[in-house]
Amino acid sequence: MEKEKKKPVILITNDDGITAPGIKNLIEAVKDLGKVVVVAPDKPQSGMGHAITIGVPLRLHKVNLFEGIEAYQCSGTPVDCVKLAVDKVLHHKPDICLSGINHGANHSINVIYSGTMSAAVEAAIESIPSIGFSLLDYSLEADFSAARKYARIIVEQMLQSPPNKHCVLNVNIPIATVDEIKGVKVCRQAYAKYEEDFIERNDPHGRKYYWLTGEFVNFDEGTDTDVWALANNYISIVPVQFDLTHYKQKEHLEKNWNILSKEG
Amino acid sequence: MEKEKKKPVILITNDDGITAPGIKNLIEAVKDLGKVVVVAPDKPQSGMGHAITIGVPLRLHKVNLFEGIEAYQCSGTPVDCVKLAVDKVLHHKPDICLSGINHGANHSINVIYSGTMSAAVEAAIESIPSIGFSLLDYSLEADFSAARKYARIIVEQMLQSPPNKHCVLNVNIPIATVDEIKGVKVCRQAYAKYEEDFIERNDPHGRKYYWLTGEFVNFDEGTDTDVWALANNYISIVPVQFDLTHYKQKEHLEKNWNILSKEG
Repeated sequence: MEKEKKKPVILITNDDGITAPGIKNLIEAVKDLGKVVVVAPDKPQSGMGHAITIGVPLRLHKVNLFEGIEAYQCSGTPVDCVKLAVDKVLHHKPDICLSGINHGANHSINVIYSGTMSAAVEAAIESIPSIGFSLLDYSLEADFSAARKYARIIVEQMLQSPPNKHCVLNVNIPIATVDEIKGVKVCRQAYAKYEEDFIERNDPHGRKYYWLTGEFVNFDEGTDTDVWALANNYISIVPVQFDLTHYKQKEHLEKNWNILSKEG
Repeated sequence: MEKEKKKPVILITNDDGITAPGIKNLIEAVKDLGKVVVVAPDKPQSGMGHAITIGVPLRLHKVNLFEGIEAYQCSGTPVDCVKLAVDKVLHHKPDICLSGINHGANHSINVIYSGTMSAAVEAAIESIPSIGFSLLDYSLEADFSAARKYARIIVEQMLQSPPNKHCVLNVNIPIATVDEIKGVKVCRQAYAKYEEDFIERNDPHGRKYYWLTGEFVNFDEGTDTDVWALANNYISIVPVQFDLTHYKQKEHLEKNWNILSKEG
């Protein structure tokens, strides 16, 4: 007789902080697919990119926020949360790491600035298949129905057939009802960027300060991008890599630069 | 008669902070190759990855640290420095952006955690060719002679023939004298990672806290990697991309996952 298959361990984190509605919705969506353990930042950490905490020590506190779920809040960044969870909470690698559901888009170039996605990438570096989820709606009162439904479908598929242990998926969900969603598309990252515009103000002492603002501008007309899919009410999945070598440019330099070593 | 060619504008930043010896050495190495403008963090920002400052405003102050060089210290991250420099200091794109010289290695997976490299990547997103420089020696008293010599050679080559406006190079310099350096190699990023080991301590009130430590472990036996080149006394150059799409895995998912939309 075959032994009952062990329940997969699902590590959940985010970058909006452990009290954000998005992480609660993610937990609800997948909690019966395995044993869920939550380690998430104790405060919002948006825009932290792949930051890690070197100069100050980290705190980790057990919290009772989600019924029947082991959960901890951590004073560090999303990447710190993943590292601490594996080393000091689970004491082994989980079967999968989920990050989110982020309040706001992480499509296109946002993947680089996103704490949500950096947590997922960190897990994949550690050989833990992972998925970051983001909903394009920033508001605290956002409707997570479609996000919850599709997060569950994608996590089930990933648990059944993970492409490999270093696989990390960037999943974005459009602002749409369950009925409006047209389906799930695998996409490439659109080439887009922020056009910065710092707002300049004076403090009460007459000294200047600057607020970072910016407009997201898409330069990519492809219909195979995440930006296109989301604008057309599809869920977008972009598989992400952490080998950042630009192989084409490597070849170009090897052929054209004369300052390179001739041997080897 | 041909007009005299305009001097290129060289933006310099770093992540160790504007008072670090590394940035002074980089300025010295290239200051006669163009008009140098410095915008760098007012304090160390190591390990900040691609973090940006959203929740607090930024300060920018002119400083007189480098003879004859326009320089500013900024309260934000390395990425903030690049954004502010372009929008509020230069009011146009510089011809090249240089970041460093970092005190410590940014080879292999370090590229993901590095503020030095994130500043360079941010510039490339903005269509400014850029180079991040890192010396494998952490110490404040490090010998920058070889780093200075090769930084200059590489910047000259990049100004003469930049592969394209989105080109960003990750340059690492081994701990070696000028005579010991064997040359310059274009490499791929080695597959390596940190094996985390958090040190657990108790504060005077009996509460636990954790220090992040970790050992760098190289899993990559290739002789075409940055780790190999550096161990063999070569300067390593890895061209870096910011399209993080994992195209192979994209194909794999498209073929094998049955939750995807059939149309289009």
